[in-house]
Amino acid sequence: MKIIIVGGAGTIGNKVTADLEKDHEVIKVGRTSGDIQADITQPESIEVMFKTIGSFDALVSISGTGHFGPLKTMTAADFQVGLQSKLLGQVNLVLIGQHYINPKGSFTLTSGILSEDPVFGSANLAAVNAALNSFAMAAALELENDVRINVVSPGVVEDSPELFGAFPGHMPVSMPVVVNAYRKSVLGVVNGQVIKAF
Amino acid sequence: MKIIIVGGAGTIGNKVTADLEKDHEVIKVGRTSGDIQADITQPESIEVMFKTIGSFDALVSISGTGHFGPLKTMTAADFQVGLQSKLLGQVNLVLIGQHYINPKGSFTLTSGILSEDPVFGSANLAAVNAALNSFAMAAALELENDVRINVVSPGVVEDSPELFGAFPGHMPVSMPVVVNAYRKSVLGVVNGQVIKAF
Repeated sequence: MKIIIVGGAGTIGNKVTADLEKDHEVIKVGRTSGDIQADITQPESIEVMFKTIGSFDALVSISGTGHFGPLKTMTAADFQVGLQSKLLGQVNLVLIGQHYINPKGSFTLTSGILSEDPVFGSANLAAVNAALNSFAMAAALELENDVRINVVSPGVVEDSPELFGAFPGHMPVSMPVVVNAYRKSVLGVVNGQVIKAF
Repeated sequence: MKIIIVGGAGTIGNKVTADLEKDHEVIKVGRTSGDIQADITQPESIEVMFKTIGSFDALVSISGTGHFGPLKTMTAADFQVGLQSKLLGQVNLVLIGQHYINPKGSFTLTSGILSEDPVFGSANLAAVNAALNSFAMAAALELENDVRINVVSPGVVEDSPELFGAFPGHMPVSMPVVVNAYRKSVLGVVNGQVIKAF
C-alpha cells in the first residue's frame, strides 16, 4: 500500500510512521522535514504535493496546530490559528486529496480528546477537534469509489510528558494504543468513525 | 433583563424575539436590520456594537451562515464561509462580549443537528455546528463572574419548509420546542450545555 503520512515527524507521527513503514511504502510529508515538503494551510501547496506524489492508497494526517490559552484573553486572531491550521489544513487534505486517491483508499485525520473533555485553555482546540470529528462523519457519506475517512482522537500521550501539567487527571495514553487506532483506520474497514485513543 | 438578540430577524430569531420581548428589554442586532447593525465576521464591528449597547444580561445569537454543497466540488474557500461566519462570528460575540456582560449573565449560541445527523452537502455545517457545541462546553469552564454559556442545536424547523427536501427523514421541529430551548438557556440556570431542539 502507498501511504502518505502528513506530520510523520511529530510525537505520534514518529511511532505511526515506524509502524506502517514495516509493511508499506510510506511517503513522509512535513512542513520543513520529510520526503516532501508541504504547508497544509496553503491549498496550492497541497495541490503540488499530490501532483508530485501521484495516486495513493491512504493518507494519514497527524498535523496542524491550534491556540492554547485562557479564554479571558483570547482574540479572534488566536482562534483563527486552529481554524486555519489543524482544522482547515486537514480538511483541505481531504477536499483536494479526494481527486487523487485510489478507489478503496482511506483518509485518517487527527482530532483529540479536548472536544469532549476540555481543560483550561482549550476553547480553540475543543472546537477544532469537534469540527474534525463531525467533518469526517459527514464526508464519509459523500466520498465516492469506496474511499473511507476516519478521525483518530487521541488523549494526552505518554510520549508527551511536557503536556501532563495542562491535563490534570487525564491518564496518559500508551503509544501502542494510539498506533493501533491509526492501524484500525488505515488497514481496517471502518468508515465515518471517530476512533478514540484514550 | 436586558437581552441582545443577534439575528433576531431570521426564521428562528423572529419567534425567539417575540417570546423574550414580552417580559424583557430586547435589543435586536442584525447585519442590515434591527435596532443596531453589526457584522459578526468583523471583530471591530462587534466591539462597536457592545460599546454602543453597554452592559447587558444575556446575549442570544441565531446568526451566521455556512456553505451547503457537495463534498466532491467543495473548496477551501467554500469551507471558510462557515468558519468565518457561523463559527468564528458567534465565537467572537463571546470572546469580546465576556468583557461587557453583567455578572450572572448568559450567552446562548446556535449550532444545529447536522453535527450529529449529517445530510448530503453538510460537511461544512456539520463541522461548524460541532465546533460551536464543544467551544461552549470548554468556554463554560472559564467564564468568570458566574456568567453562563449554552448552545441551542435545532433540527430543521417547521417554519422552514424550503429546507425539508435537503433533510430527508428529518422530523420538522415545532417552533415552541425551539423557542423553549432558548428560554431554558437564557432564563434557566444550565451551563455548558448543548440544548437539543429536535
